[in-house]
Amino acid sequence: MTPALERIRIVLCSPSHPGNIGAVARAMRAMGLERLTLVAPSRFPDPEASARAAGATAILAAAKVVPTVDAALAGSVLAIGFSARPREFAGAVLSVRAAAQEALRFAQAGDVALVFGTEMSGLSNIELDRCQIVSTIPTNPGFSSLNLAAAVQVAAYELYVAASGGAVWSAPAFEPATHEEIEQLFAHGEQMLIALNFLYPRQPKRLLPRLRRLFARARLEKEEVNILRGILARIDERLRQGERVGGR
Amino acid sequence: MTPALERIRIVLCSPSHPGNIGAVARAMRAMGLERLTLVAPSRFPDPEASARAAGATAILAAAKVVPTVDAALAGSVLAIGFSARPREFAGAVLSVRAAAQEALRFAQAGDVALVFGTEMSGLSNIELDRCQIVSTIPTNPGFSSLNLAAAVQVAAYELYVAASGGAVWSAPAFEPATHEEIEQLFAHGEQMLIALNFLYPRQPKRLLPRLRRLFARARLEKEEVNILRGILARIDERLRQGERVGGR
Repeated sequence: MTPALERIRIVLCSPSHPGNIGAVARAMRAMGLERLTLVAPSRFPDPEASARAAGATAILAAAKVVPTVDAALAGSVLAIGFSARPREFAGAVLSVRAAAQEALRFAQAGDVALVFGTEMSGLSNIELDRCQIVSTIPTNPGFSSLNLAAAVQVAAYELYVAASGGAVWSAPAFEPATHEEIEQLFAHGEQMLIALNFLYPRQPKRLLPRLRRLFARARLEKEEVNILRGILARIDERLRQGERVGGR
Repeated sequence: MTPALERIRIVLCSPSHPGNIGAVARAMRAMGLERLTLVAPSRFPDPEASARAAGATAILAAAKVVPTVDAALAGSVLAIGFSARPREFAGAVLSVRAAAQEALRFAQAGDVALVFGTEMSGLSNIELDRCQIVSTIPTNPGFSSLNLAAAVQVAAYELYVAASGGAVWSAPAFEPATHEEIEQLFAHGEQMLIALNFLYPRQPKRLLPRLRRLFARARLEKEEVNILRGILARIDERLRQGERVGGR
């Protein structure tokens, strides 16, 4: 396993067929990936998963099972969601080949998650909102239905080719923000918008998803999150002063 | 299906698991391939093949079943055999990506066969001898065992990308902000940061260039600038209220 591939985790959201989980493990191992996270699987562990994993049962044994996509993304610096269809709130849309390059670039700085949706319907909007990149595997427009393990196979293959073939050019040093830091920033920003009466929680409209999309495209760095949190904290302070002085 | 892909046939030599045949059909259809030839399959047709084919049962219905690899290659102008291991082989050895380019080049002239061996042992020497090119899918050297349908999936994907130019569905239409709109946003933001005593004009440090860089990466849209201007205006209003009420 090359160092960059060690930083890649495959996240399966609500997989319903244990056979697919096993086939994903086999696809991963053949491409030098080892880290599998399962969000609320229907059945796991399961003999069918082990059978389809062939020689890759160690990946199943080490798989993490978590209840939410946020838990699956904890500690990651980049999340790439896979979707067959154009979505309204996508950040950057990249082919799987371009996404593999981006995944390796970020893997120099921290963990990268490749996120796959449930078999029947793919990623939910909530899951996709957590991703900074949406990646798509080019397919026949008349039949874009890839099996889950087949999709992971193609993505893992592109990662392996990108990691093993051709020098991975060294990117300028930067420290991307983690999932948690970004979610805390969004939570803080949301509170401020509510306090300003700019956002009405009962009628949120599309304000927060639009802001998420903007910052997803930017791929926030740690220091930028710190600056934005600093600005928000200063605004909080001034709003509180105004209320205190005004007796409200 | 693009014209070049119509000329590609997938040949499975002695497939032993009908489920794999079905999964191959599904992988083919997703990548715009339609022509499947089975050399002496153990069980075919079979309900398990149909189940795993999902929406691609038409490919199974149209599949040719033949007794020998020579019959499978009849009428083709190029045969590309897939093998995980280096072989004593006189022809060219290409990565699957390079082989896909070569397949499309020959497909301008006639039919091209992609030939896959049986699950347990791959292509026999007799089968491989019929091929002009051996192609290999890069894998983890410690575990090069790809499932048959997974191998077809990767090969079909490379063909599709090569044939379609790798076109990705385009992101939703958007209207980028103009230079002037962005500069007005920055000017407004700068005033606010000064009013908050977060930015000191005599010691600006690197704050504004850092924020510029963040938003430059995001490539702001017109509507996003409007939202951000709206938030800034609301903060202005509240800061002024605080000052008025506080008599400052």
